[in-house]
This record gives sequence, structure tokens and C-alpha cells, in this order.
Amino acid sequence: MTTLPFDPLRATFGDRLLTAGAEISRFGRDAISEEGYGGTPDAVVYPESTDEVVELVNFARERVIPLVPRGGGSGLSGGAVPVAGGIVVAMERMNRVIEIDTANLVAVLEPGVVTKALDSMLEPHGLFFAGYPMSEEICQIGGNVAENAGGGRAVKYGVTGDYVLGLEVVTAAGTVLRLGGRRVKDVTGYDLIGLFVGSEGTLGIVTQVTLRLLPRPAARAVALGFLTDESRLAEVTPALLALPARPSAVEFADAACMRLLSSLSAQWRWIPSGAAMLLVEFDGSDANRVASERDEAAALLKSHGVVEVSRSGTEADYEKLWLLRKQVPWALMKKSPHQTMEDITVPVAGTWPLIAGTRETSRRRGVEIANFGHLGDGNIHVTPLKPDGLDVGRWHEELPDLQTELYRLAASLGGTISGEHGIGHKRRAFLPLVLGEAELETMRAVKQALDPLGIMNPGKAV
Amino acid sequence: MTTLPFDPLRATFGDRLLTAGAEISRFGRDAISEEGYGGTPDAVVYPESTDEVVELVNFARERVIPLVPRGGGSGLSGGAVPVAGGIVVAMERMNRVIEIDTANLVAVLEPGVVTKALDSMLEPHGLFFAGYPMSEEICQIGGNVAENAGGGRAVKYGVTGDYVLGLEVVTAAGTVLRLGGRRVKDVTGYDLIGLFVGSEGTLGIVTQVTLRLLPRPAARAVALGFLTDESRLAEVTPALLALPARPSAVEFADAACMRLLSSLSAQWRWIPSGAAMLLVEFDGSDANRVASERDEAAALLKSHGVVEVSRSGTEADYEKLWLLRKQVPWALMKKSPHQTMEDITVPVAGTWPLIAGTRETSRRRGVEIANFGHLGDGNIHVTPLKPDGLDVGRWHEELPDLQTELYRLAASLGGTISGEHGIGHKRRAFLPLVLGEAELETMRAVKQALDPLGIMNPGKAV
Repeated sequence: MTTLPFDPLRATFGDRLLTAGAEISRFGRDAISEEGYGGTPDAVVYPESTDEVVELVNFARERVIPLVPRGGGSGLSGGAVPVAGGIVVAMERMNRVIEIDTANLVAVLEPGVVTKALDSMLEPHGLFFAGYPMSEEICQIGGNVAENAGGGRAVKYGVTGDYVLGLEVVTAAGTVLRLGGRRVKDVTGYDLIGLFVGSEGTLGIVTQVTLRLLPRPAARAVALGFLTDESRLAEVTPALLALPARPSAVEFADAACMRLLSSLSAQWRWIPSGAAMLLVEFDGSDANRVASERDEAAALLKSHGVVEVSRSGTEADYEKLWLLRKQVPWALMKKSPHQTMEDITVPVAGTWPLIAGTRETSRRRGVEIANFGHLGDGNIHVTPLKPDGLDVGRWHEELPDLQTELYRLAASLGGTISGEHGIGHKRRAFLPLVLGEAELETMRAVKQALDPLGIMNPGKAV
Repeated sequence: MTTLPFDPLRATFGDRLLTAGAEISRFGRDAISEEGYGGTPDAVVYPESTDEVVELVNFARERVIPLVPRGGGSGLSGGAVPVAGGIVVAMERMNRVIEIDTANLVAVLEPGVVTKALDSMLEPHGLFFAGYPMSEEICQIGGNVAENAGGGRAVKYGVTGDYVLGLEVVTAAGTVLRLGGRRVKDVTGYDLIGLFVGSEGTLGIVTQVTLRLLPRPAARAVALGFLTDESRLAEVTPALLALPARPSAVEFADAACMRLLSSLSAQWRWIPSGAAMLLVEFDGSDANRVASERDEAAALLKSHGVVEVSRSGTEADYEKLWLLRKQVPWALMKKSPHQTMEDITVPVAGTWPLIAGTRETSRRRGVEIANFGHLGDGNIHVTPLKPDGLDVGRWHEELPDLQTELYRLAASLGGTISGEHGIGHKRRAFLPLVLGEAELETMRAVKQALDPLGIMNPGKAV
């Protein structure tokens, strides 16, 4: 490693260039628990400006060294992991909020801004960035853009890409592209913004983002309920989406997740046993109206066999209800770090067939599979957990076959293998299960056209 | 023309292949009134299936003949005009609605479906396609996708591209790409759908579209008012967008448009003279609520000097109010077919500076410039009209200089030269005014990668 000639970078980056030591090892992993998905960086650089990113790209291109941009490291696809070595480009010091433009309802940011920090700055203006993911405490805007991340309110508001009006990107050629701006409509040439969003840093490094903002909803109302007969999800989900008011969240966690939470924490002992959780939220400007929309949804849930636990409540109550959903990944990690949290997405009416299919797989293979996620989007985090008795090595050997079965199930339902986490390197080998050779070839042709040397985050996405 | 060897197509296309005669001349133009933007097709083919499109592409590729896909011909950028000759691919017979999937809230269509025809089929299901353009009586879904068209309700609902979940595309290689599907979230590889949407047929021919649908709003309410001091648009527009409820339309036409309508038709004699029109609409599930949202907006308008004409009303009244906006292009055409209807888009707060800037240009050049359009999107159809005394030839000579001035004005305000109509060949030469060489080079690299022979709608977009 030390033979790689990083010295020319020292003049510009000084102690913002790391080439050895324990400190760089954390850049070998993202939020995937399994060690097998890690990599080893040769160096880590913290740029502080677009010019510095350009210098870095030129340096890497001349030497054909991989560049791996990294945000908050909260990814779940290995997108920010240096699987081919090279330089991790840690964007966390490019974290200025350049402007909050209240007249045009946009924010101009550097990519290292933490999502929640942006939210705190927008709140006093009565605005918000509606495409935020659930890892908002950690994730950075640049990473959200790279993965086209979505979150708990995508059912109403869409995902990150729906709010990106402008991007500054440093290409593999070291050129700075300035795309879009503060205008909400734009058909001037090809939609390169859409191409860069979700491309996982494989086409360039994002150095500035212009986000569309929305007026912050003043009120919300949450209904939380439990469903013993999970097969009724087949009716409940389309019925909720056919309501005249669009819910701001339709979240789900199955009985296995609930059982686990109940066993892990005294605060969740009251959860009824053997039932899945459904959380439905409405937001808007008027407290009475969102309450009545919530009441209508609650009546609908009841008519489909959902036993409601809480309807009326304060903001603090709602936060606590959401906690029940948000703690699911933590509970599953407690159960076993040897797991694969998947990100399968199907047409909404296919959500129950998907879950039922995973149950069949679970029974046949003797592997517990928890299901939770964004029901209203058909985006379920199907999560197989290593059986207690099974050797870890054996688990890893068998995993690709299990994933293949789940991905084939998704494909058979018109779904795909990632809705919001990305392909990264975790799912890259499985792409042919959901994309044909023609589609993959077209993506590779785009990659080849924009990054002919393959220095931009190699081993990811396509 | 007759020397081109179209005979091999005859076996498949029979009388759906036209190579001469008056019937093909209409395919030389779109909805731009000026003859100078026309072209001459060598042939017109009406495919009826994806397989036939593949055959046509293979035929054209082997002979390096341009292919120009065409929808309803309602475009205003010359996107569907055969400027380099070749074969116009008229999609109007591929007009099947393959499925309206009410459980997943999607419609699967062939590209030749007329937008309004789709709407009529969706209405009984209580659904709608929210990204439709204002030319809905004529425009076809494929053309909407090609131009990423938007319309009068984009301020709330966005544009066509926001609703495209899936595409089938025949590439220049004659390969059929099947992209996306009925799922609402998808980060599986690059967003090729976003790349094809708005690419004006320069990267491939769309043969199937999967559109996301929304529950159809049961109620709407419209406020129409007149504003004598147009400079107050600078305050009105951001104020309307900061309202807690998002308007479904914020439309505008200036005093010149109103004067013209009033002079052309007895039904508009009542329009107050010297005032611009503002139309604000709200829609939703609840009639009382949308009425109260409208009332709040109306009060806001009044506080900014807007004299309101109509608030309460029936659906028929609302249609009539909208007619005042919809007849503006007709009135301008009556005034002079020698005009250039532009499609400038700026950040919303820049709308008044844009209009004020066009007034300055108008005064200096002695050219009347009408302004109307989608105020809430900052998308103004700036429309210079040939002065009565000016020779048509001279008008055309001077036009590029006038357009350049307007486009520079747009760029200086952070805007661009097309928000919804597209670049086509009308605005292609002007792209460097709003895109840098690096951005254009990147677009050309994508074009080169996907269509190396340049047979797909040459002379358009990039």
C-alpha cells in the first residue's frame, strides 16, 4: 500500500490525506454488518472544495487509481466501500449550506451536509426537504443523491431524486458539470441530473446539490394498529392508497419483528403477540383535517381486521409510535448481526404475495426471514437471519442461493432488488436476475462513455 | 426521393408505408406556425407493433436513414420534424391501452394513445394521469414522454416524467429495452427511463409506456383575478407558493393577451382593460376544503392588488374561466402567425424580472412581446410577434438575434430556454447560451454511445 505514490497530494491536502493507520480502516465498511462486504482503502482524502476534487480526480486518472466517494457511511449496499482499493473521497468536510433561498424554495448545499442538520436549518423557515431517508441523523445529502435514497414518507413525497433541481459534478475527465439550477421545469437537453442521481458515484463525484423545498406541514396524525391475519395486507394496501387523501406514511413490520421488540425492551411489552404492525400517517397544514383523514384511514383499517391501538395523541405520542417502526432494524441486529437486510420493491399490490413468498422460502430453508418497511411503496426490507445453530462460514456460503431465490420471487412479481438502498457491490452480481442483457449493456455503454478508464467507484452499480 | 430504396419495407407495412403524395407533406411540420421550421420526409411509416418498429430500425440502420418518431404533431420545438429527411415513424396506430391496473394505480399504454382519450378511460375508475400537457386533445403519450411535456397543473403535480414508471424502447441497435415496471421505487442500475424521457426520440423509439396514476380529485375551486400593476407579480408568485395548500394551477396572461382576447371575441368584452389575468386553482377530495383554500388564496391576491372577478362557481364556470387562459395561444395566432412562442423557465421568483426584461426588449426593438403561461413554475411562453409593417423575410432574419437576447435574459436570471416544449431543432443552435461546452459534450457522449450512426432523429436536442 505504501508504495502507492500519494505524496503529490500532500501539498494540497496536508493532514487531510490519510494513507495508513487505524483511522482509515473505518472507511472500509458501510452500515452492512457482515464483514465480508468490506474493502480496504489505500488512502482517504477529505476535500474541502470543488477545485480540490478536480485535483484529486486528475491525480487519480493519470495513475488509474479508483476513487470511492463517501458520505455518512450509512449505506446498505456497499456503495461507498473501496472494493478495488484506491482513494476514499470523504465528503464530510464539504458540508456548507450555501444558501436557503426562501423565495424560490430551494436550498443549495455541499454534499457533506448531514440530512438532519439541513432539516434543523430549514425548520425556522417553515420549509423541509421531503425526500429524506430514515437514516437522517447520519446520512449526508451527497450519499442520498448517490443512492437516490428514499424514506418513510416516500409514499406521499417521493425520494431524493424527486427534489434534485441542480447538481455540480466532477466527471472522470476532471471536468466540472453544472446541471440544472433553481428552476422547477427544465427540458434543455438530456436529463443528466437524473442520470447522476442514483449512479452511486460511478459516473462522477457530486460537489454541490440544489434541492427543491416544500412548505413544512404544520400538523400530522398517526394511526397505529395490529393485524393478526397478515394475508389481509393484500386488501389493505391498495385500499389505503385509493383513499382521497394521500397518506404521508404507510409503514409495516411483521409479527416476527414485533415479537423481537417486545422481548428486547420493556417499553414494548404491550405489543399484542402474533400480530404485525401497521402505521399510517397523514400530514398537512390543518390539524383538524389531517385528524379526520387519519380517522377515515383508521376506519378502513378496522374494516380489514386491524385492531387499532392509538389514534388521538400528541406529537410526543406520534414520535413514540414511529419509534416502534424505527427500532425494528436495531432489534433485528440484536437478534443476529449475521443477516442480509434486503430492499425488495414490488408493485404495491404485490406486497402480500412477496411476503407470503418469503414465508414459504423461510419454511423450506429453515431460515427466519423478517419483513418490514415501506408498505405503501411496495418496498419491503426482507431480512433473512442466520439460524442460531448454523456456522457463520456456512451461512455466507448459502447466502447467494437464498438471495437468488428472493430476487427471483421479486422479479416474478414485477419487482426489483432495490428500491432505495442501491445496488452497490452487494447486489451487483444479481443484476441479471432483474435486468436483461440489453438493459445492462446500455448502462455499461453510458458508464464507458463517461468513465472510460473505470476510475469512478469501480465494482459498483452496473 | 423516389430513388431511396423503401421497397423492402412494403412487405411488412403495405399501405402503411407512404413514400409520396400530399398525404406525407403534413409530416413535415409540427404545431409551429412558421414554415421555416418545416422539413420534408422521404417516407412515412405507421408501425402497429414493437416488432415492426424493430424491423424499421434495422432497415434504417443498415442504410443510415434518419428515423423521426412522431406523436400528435402538437409539438412546438420542431422535435418531430424530419429536418434531415428520412422516415417519419407515425406512432398513431400503436394506440392501445394495454391495461388499466387499478390495484397498482398504473396504466400500460402504447405511445400513440391520445392524452385526452386516456383520461376518458381513467375517469370511470376515479383515476387520472397528473402529468398531462394542455394540448391533451391532440398530443399523444409517446410525444409527451419524448418532450417531457408539462401542463397547467405542473405546479402541483409535476410533469410527464414524474409519472413514467416503465418504458419499452427500441434502440438504434434495434434492441428492445424493457425498463422499470409497475413499482414506484427502483434504484436498480442507472435511471435510463429518466434519460429517455425528454430525449426527443434521439436515443430510441418508445413503444410502450407505464404511467403512474393518482386518485382523481373530486372537487376543485378557481379564483380568477386581474392585476393592473404587473410589477406586483414579484410578490404574488412566491406568496402563492408559500401557502400551506399547494395550488393545482397558478396561470398568467399579460394585459396584451387580454386586450387581444377582448377584441377578438364578444364573450371576453368584459375583461377589464389594461390588466393581466391571474388564475389560481385548488383541487382535492373535499369541496369545502378546496373552496376554503381558494378563499385564502383569493384574500392573498386581493392584498397584492388583484381585483377578483369570480370565486364561487360551478364546474361549468370554472371551465369558462380556464378558457380565458386556454384561448390565449389562439388569440396570438390570430394576431399574427409570424411569431415565436418561447418556453422560457426561470426560478419562480425570477418571473417578474423576466417579464419586465421582455418589456424592455420590446420597447427597444419595437416588437410586441406577449407573456403568458405557468406562473407557478416560472415557465412563461414569451411570444414576440412580427410587427405589422415588417416584411416576413426581414422578421426571420432578425429573429435569431431577438431570441438570443431573450435567452440571455433567461440565463441571467438562472433560467433556461425550454421548460416543457423541448429543444427540438428550433432551439438547438441556442443551447450554448444556457449549457456549457462540458455539459453539451457529456450529452453528446451519451448520444454517441447509444446511437453511434446518428440515425435517431438527427438534428434535434443535443
